[in-house]
Amino acid sequence: MNMSDCTKSNEFAEAAPLFSWDELGAGIMARAQALAAHTEAPGMMTRSFLTPAHHTAAARLAAWMAEAGMSVRRDVVGNVIGRYEGIEPDAPALLTGSHFDTVPNGGIYDGILGILLPIACVARWHAQGRRFAHAIEVIGFAEEEGVRFKATLLGSRAIAGAFDLRVLDHTDAAGVTMRQAIDTAGLGYSCADLGAAAMDPARMLGFLEVHIEQGPVLLDAGLALGIVTGIAGATRMQVEVSGVAGHAGTVPMAGRRDAAMAAAEIALAIEQRCGGVEGLVGTVGQFDVPGGAANVVPGRALFSIDVRAEQDGQREAAVADILAAIDRIAARRGVATQVRQTHEARSVPCAPALCRQLDAALRRAGLPARRLPSGAGHDAMVIAARTDMAMLFVRCGNGGISHNPLETMSAEDAALAARVASDFIEHFQPSGSNDHKEYLA
Amino acid sequence: MNMSDCTKSNEFAEAAPLFSWDELGAGIMARAQALAAHTEAPGMMTRSFLTPAHHTAAARLAAWMAEAGMSVRRDVVGNVIGRYEGIEPDAPALLTGSHFDTVPNGGIYDGILGILLPIACVARWHAQGRRFAHAIEVIGFAEEEGVRFKATLLGSRAIAGAFDLRVLDHTDAAGVTMRQAIDTAGLGYSCADLGAAAMDPARMLGFLEVHIEQGPVLLDAGLALGIVTGIAGATRMQVEVSGVAGHAGTVPMAGRRDAAMAAAEIALAIEQRCGGVEGLVGTVGQFDVPGGAANVVPGRALFSIDVRAEQDGQREAAVADILAAIDRIAARRGVATQVRQTHEARSVPCAPALCRQLDAALRRAGLPARRLPSGAGHDAMVIAARTDMAMLFVRCGNGGISHNPLETMSAEDAALAARVASDFIEHFQPSGSNDHKEYLA
Repeated sequence: MNMSDCTKSNEFAEAAPLFSWDELGAGIMARAQALAAHTEAPGMMTRSFLTPAHHTAAARLAAWMAEAGMSVRRDVVGNVIGRYEGIEPDAPALLTGSHFDTVPNGGIYDGILGILLPIACVARWHAQGRRFAHAIEVIGFAEEEGVRFKATLLGSRAIAGAFDLRVLDHTDAAGVTMRQAIDTAGLGYSCADLGAAAMDPARMLGFLEVHIEQGPVLLDAGLALGIVTGIAGATRMQVEVSGVAGHAGTVPMAGRRDAAMAAAEIALAIEQRCGGVEGLVGTVGQFDVPGGAANVVPGRALFSIDVRAEQDGQREAAVADILAAIDRIAARRGVATQVRQTHEARSVPCAPALCRQLDAALRRAGLPARRLPSGAGHDAMVIAARTDMAMLFVRCGNGGISHNPLETMSAEDAALAARVASDFIEHFQPSGSNDHKEYLA
Repeated sequence: MNMSDCTKSNEFAEAAPLFSWDELGAGIMARAQALAAHTEAPGMMTRSFLTPAHHTAAARLAAWMAEAGMSVRRDVVGNVIGRYEGIEPDAPALLTGSHFDTVPNGGIYDGILGILLPIACVARWHAQGRRFAHAIEVIGFAEEEGVRFKATLLGSRAIAGAFDLRVLDHTDAAGVTMRQAIDTAGLGYSCADLGAAAMDPARMLGFLEVHIEQGPVLLDAGLALGIVTGIAGATRMQVEVSGVAGHAGTVPMAGRRDAAMAAAEIALAIEQRCGGVEGLVGTVGQFDVPGGAANVVPGRALFSIDVRAEQDGQREAAVADILAAIDRIAARRGVATQVRQTHEARSVPCAPALCRQLDAALRRAGLPARRLPSGAGHDAMVIAARTDMAMLFVRCGNGGISHNPLETMSAEDAALAARVASDFIEHFQPSGSNDHKEYLA
């Protein structure tokens, strides 16, 4: 598909000029469906970094941005950046966006919503001839999920000037290095240009990420939208339990040093410790008895631990208690354990000033301003190192399921989110500054 | 390797004629080491049904049997059967033996001991010119472990006339059916001869299997030998737990339907139910979260259950309680479970009359006559359907570990076992008959 193909399939054009929020919501949903055609696996939503599907999806986003009145550029990692100028040329910009890669067999709104929604908002202002004191840059981050090269948030890290050059040596399943993939992507750059992809923080006024919640909190509360207070910190560990393998029929229960039973008891201790504490979650997502057989007492078990909380102290206390429980259970059962921490990230708070502005926008729309933490990581937490950051969560249907083909949301919620995000951008006040004004261009 | 190669490496020849039990014990250990060279995987003890290593091991056993004064035949499944005639030709026989296949990377005494030990005993009688009222048949069962075709006890089933013809359609990892493997084994038979492999029960006086314990009971008790009271009954189940997958960061603990946590709780309930009950064991040997990821709440978990007890009522009560616990835990956690029973076998008692004769032989050797159940299955439990069966367990070193390269036993224990088994066979009284006499031929 080339760019001219993209512009032909213009879901908004049929209803332009757009002023109805319902039309905007329906248009966003239609474009999410259209973008889902750019997949590596027909019938599934699978789009990894710099694959052909990823390139054609980027081209389509670029075409929609251009049609909405934006100048479009791509950078070395394939980020698609559309700029809608303010009243004065070259004004500093309010950034907004999210990612357009997906997990394998994922949902079609995760990430994408946060790109399509501001494109629709800009298209509306463009049709209305409106500009603001600040420019608006809509960013489609090329990579967030970390699927192809086991390295996450590549798009936002490049823009934040926080790209870890060591990941360039990571290889994909076919043995291609990330360096090779970037150098041969046909974007007109090589890895030597990574530094130049960083945006100047002095030119950033703030960052808003609109994202599907990926959980059930808003759904359970009966609310379309929520203001994210911060992105939870996380600790991840891999645990290996070594006991003594034995014959399931011949080793009496009292003499066993069963690695799987020890792991099961530790898993339940994690659930017990994290349950009932607001804002704290603990998960054992991997649990394996390598080479296990029905008639063998397990000598070895492997499992993962993932602990998250918005309050770092809460998470650190839980991790300490879990490590103590591991030692206590292992000692009582006569098994050895090896705990390897694989990830540790402090929580990233959203900018209070921007949260208050989102709050005001929600109230102007007559909506309750529910606040909630984000348990998942997002591009916003990388950009937060450079400028004020806020996130608006949109209700996730189907029990809150995400990273799954069953992920869904409603056109009504998309319309409400577009209305609130537009209002937020129209009233946007850069932190510590009061010089924001709105003009009709 | 051909037969003439086998006979050259004759560990006993160097010390013949053998009358010392210590020499017999050392010879058995040396032959177990020598037979370990017949492996599919150098450096490991891996010998599956009808592989080249299995054929050369059989040839070596046949050569040792012939050298001990036995006539040797093989049958359709590759069993190696040596017959040491009694005083009268064609007398009914006391059978003794075990299997010469192994699990992958297993021990070198499991099964083998029960073939090499009676060969050594017969070699001694042969050197002494002794024969008995009964013939002795030493059987090397070709297959017990069930590795290659996922069907166990093939050797003893053929001899017991209890071969399940449906397993002929099972395939190995390379897609070869058991039928093809047997028909092309070069043994001069085809599967059509399976019926003829069955021995006439009227010609069997009893069966003794000497086997390494494969557990720690004798080791912990400081005893070399034990009399098996019976082979435990077993129930095996595969359980699938279906919950709801979710994002590890975004689904609050209270709303989770975590399949792995449910499985972990069930596993601990099994351990709790089976612990502290003498003679009852319960094992979760397999535990898997398919496609599990550290940041995903498990939507699915699979695990196995293996429950064994010498008392069938004890096992059945435990299984009923475990099924009730599964239902209770699943209901409380809002997950679904599917339980599939994959195996059910009643316990097989050893013949009390033969146990008493083993008891007497142990006491004549000045040894305590400790009795213990066998938690593992053995060829003896199949033969028990046709004739009186007894088993003599030999202490397993290294904490009782088996199905493992660390499996070990001592030459001293082999000597004691050879002495007690010889004495048992010399004094053997067929059940319900008192016409047994011993003669010097």
